[in-house]
Amino acid sequence: MNALDIIAARRDGRVHTEEEIRFLVHAVTAGTIPDYQVAAWLMAAVLRPLGVDETAWLTRAMADSGERVDLTGLPKPWLDKHSTGGVGDKTTLVLLPLLASCGITMAKMSGRGLGITGGTVDKLESVPGFRINLTPEELKEQAGRIGVAITGQTPRLAPADGKLYALRDVTATVASIPLIVSSILSKKIAGGAETVVLDVKCGSGAFMTELASARQLADCLRETGRLCGLDVWTEITDMSQPLGEAVGNALEVREAIHTLRGGGPARFRELCLLLAGEALMAGGKASERESGYAMAREALDEGKAYRKAEEWFFAQSGIASLEEVDARLPVAPSLRVIVHEGASGWVAEVDASQVGEAVLDLGGGRREKGQAIDPSVGVECLVAVGDRIEPGQPVFRIHASGEPAADHAQGRLASALRVSESRVEARPLIL
Amino acid sequence: MNALDIIAARRDGRVHTEEEIRFLVHAVTAGTIPDYQVAAWLMAAVLRPLGVDETAWLTRAMADSGERVDLTGLPKPWLDKHSTGGVGDKTTLVLLPLLASCGITMAKMSGRGLGITGGTVDKLESVPGFRINLTPEELKEQAGRIGVAITGQTPRLAPADGKLYALRDVTATVASIPLIVSSILSKKIAGGAETVVLDVKCGSGAFMTELASARQLADCLRETGRLCGLDVWTEITDMSQPLGEAVGNALEVREAIHTLRGGGPARFRELCLLLAGEALMAGGKASERESGYAMAREALDEGKAYRKAEEWFFAQSGIASLEEVDARLPVAPSLRVIVHEGASGWVAEVDASQVGEAVLDLGGGRREKGQAIDPSVGVECLVAVGDRIEPGQPVFRIHASGEPAADHAQGRLASALRVSESRVEARPLIL
Repeated sequence: MNALDIIAARRDGRVHTEEEIRFLVHAVTAGTIPDYQVAAWLMAAVLRPLGVDETAWLTRAMADSGERVDLTGLPKPWLDKHSTGGVGDKTTLVLLPLLASCGITMAKMSGRGLGITGGTVDKLESVPGFRINLTPEELKEQAGRIGVAITGQTPRLAPADGKLYALRDVTATVASIPLIVSSILSKKIAGGAETVVLDVKCGSGAFMTELASARQLADCLRETGRLCGLDVWTEITDMSQPLGEAVGNALEVREAIHTLRGGGPARFRELCLLLAGEALMAGGKASERESGYAMAREALDEGKAYRKAEEWFFAQSGIASLEEVDARLPVAPSLRVIVHEGASGWVAEVDASQVGEAVLDLGGGRREKGQAIDPSVGVECLVAVGDRIEPGQPVFRIHASGEPAADHAQGRLASALRVSESRVEARPLIL
Repeated sequence: MNALDIIAARRDGRVHTEEEIRFLVHAVTAGTIPDYQVAAWLMAAVLRPLGVDETAWLTRAMADSGERVDLTGLPKPWLDKHSTGGVGDKTTLVLLPLLASCGITMAKMSGRGLGITGGTVDKLESVPGFRINLTPEELKEQAGRIGVAITGQTPRLAPADGKLYALRDVTATVASIPLIVSSILSKKIAGGAETVVLDVKCGSGAFMTELASARQLADCLRETGRLCGLDVWTEITDMSQPLGEAVGNALEVREAIHTLRGGGPARFRELCLLLAGEALMAGGKASERESGYAMAREALDEGKAYRKAEEWFFAQSGIASLEEVDARLPVAPSLRVIVHEGASGWVAEVDASQVGEAVLDLGGGRREKGQAIDPSVGVECLVAVGDRIEPGQPVFRIHASGEPAADHAQGRLASALRVSESRVEARPLIL
């Protein structure tokens, strides 16, 4: 068996054996295959996509490429929640304490943001002193004690995925559903997950901009999960406009706290409850989505989720209350409100991609791995698709490091908003 | 313009601009693009083949990537002859002096062999003292003086092709007609050619094993040549069995000398005359193939080609006669004759690929670039498809460095010969 034969097999659309895929993943992990051969295989895999068995073999081989976290002994059920990434997606910050308060153990590894897609680790790091580098042992101990814990992804878990992803990023080979699926699920398996609720984002602010592709991704995630012994639940949700109002790390933590307190944007709160309902069913705490939804709403309304969030933040940051967390979040020096200057009408579009780019321009995200980010900056989107809008009405609030940056973001945001003269319906949350 | 966009364009099957292709070739030549990005582009180009305009742009950009040889001032017509490579293909050794003796100036750059495909430079190096590293100035001076000169390919000509080919070789991206065409023609253009007669080999001993692919290659060569201002003539010729009897460097030089003297295997002599007829028409020395063929046959039969070959060999090796060249060729220490052990019948196959592999095993070729080769070893194929064969009749002569190597080659050759009980027709030379 050699790399050249494996590349040629992929090029010619022949089905790989499990041994070929293990050989490849092992060589990538050990660094014994040159990058140019991996790149050729990756491009062949984009244009001649892996089948479902091959995807499962790749997933398992990548999961086996490094350390494995063993969550055995944690109170059951335990569950992982994952989003394919979007603009303003702070769902994890609400769902973790919400589900933990309903009796599901939430021990999660999370990543950093790249491009317009935010990352939970970056959001939590805007809280002064929040420890995001728990060891697997600390993660497990804390999850066992209070039911919720989060840590940043360690490169020792599924290292083959890290290496493949870095190469995909610079060879235009990211866009392949089987490669995306194996990347997501290998890390879940290596992280000890047994059940995963997966929020597949779809729209201009997400990786999948078309519903058909998002459906394919969701199907492939469930089917590959099944072949790998992982119970995967998926929902396809709207990412054509930012989720909630806040986009930017500290702003999103604040919005999550408001939501845990029972407030927050209605649309964001609703998505949290829908996903929580699904998760409670996946975890066996509810017999159907509706009763799961009711259980989650009760936990939110009665303050159980909020109290669990305080326990969680205290455990990882030492800050005793969420009010104190809120007060300590960094604030950008320049605040600017943008008002609608056109005629009255209905909001037809708040382009998530443009809003995400504006936040990137402000310094609130990174265009390349390893870049420093400013946690205080961001954009609040004060209108959503379907809203009635009048001249002079505030539409965006820009939090910037200074006036030139705010000018730049304002220019970008001008193309994000589209207003229609005729009535526009609000977009469904679940597609 | 950046590499990632160019890779993505190829991946998505969008047509490149000429600027994109020049950007890519310039980056490859300058070494400013990492190999893994080039490899991803190459695999995308294999699976989403370049169109004819793109192929011409790539060819010109590669031709422009290094030095250009200017043959201006040489007696017209001047002409290049090229073979896509095969087993036992020593046609160049006969055609160069034959065409020069008919008044065509032959100034040629030639390559080394790789795999089962032999290279003219390797064959000529089996002649003690043959200088194969003429400078462009020496090449031009000699071609102007005696009408024929050959030199090894310099890496300073079309260096982008050298770099791309090296990468294609290790990323399973050799098999793409537009990439093959641009590789062949860019070197011809950089070498100063205006007219090229191209022998496209087809069969088990050639790169193109199927006639349909060989036809596509020939069409693409002519069309790309036209767009690049290069007059390309093609013939598709049989490479299912070795060409002539001799396979192995010194053995092939000896066979070429015999053929120039008027002897040699009939089938090989016939191919030389057919290609010469085409070349004389391409060079404007004959109005049609038939009169060109007759002119070439006369040059061969009257000894004009032989005398021109003696001038040529003297100019580059200092050896005064071809008899002396023949006498000085290295001889392998071990000679073994293989006889037919089965029933009588007709030869149905002499597999060029198996014979080529046997010669590789003997050390007469190289599996990887830069390997040393033994010029003395090789195999003579004493029967051809369509021949009547009787038990005990000699079928192969193995020239080896010793008995173990001969044993090994004998084992390989056992699977090369297939005999049929019923009559088999000889294969046509031109397909």
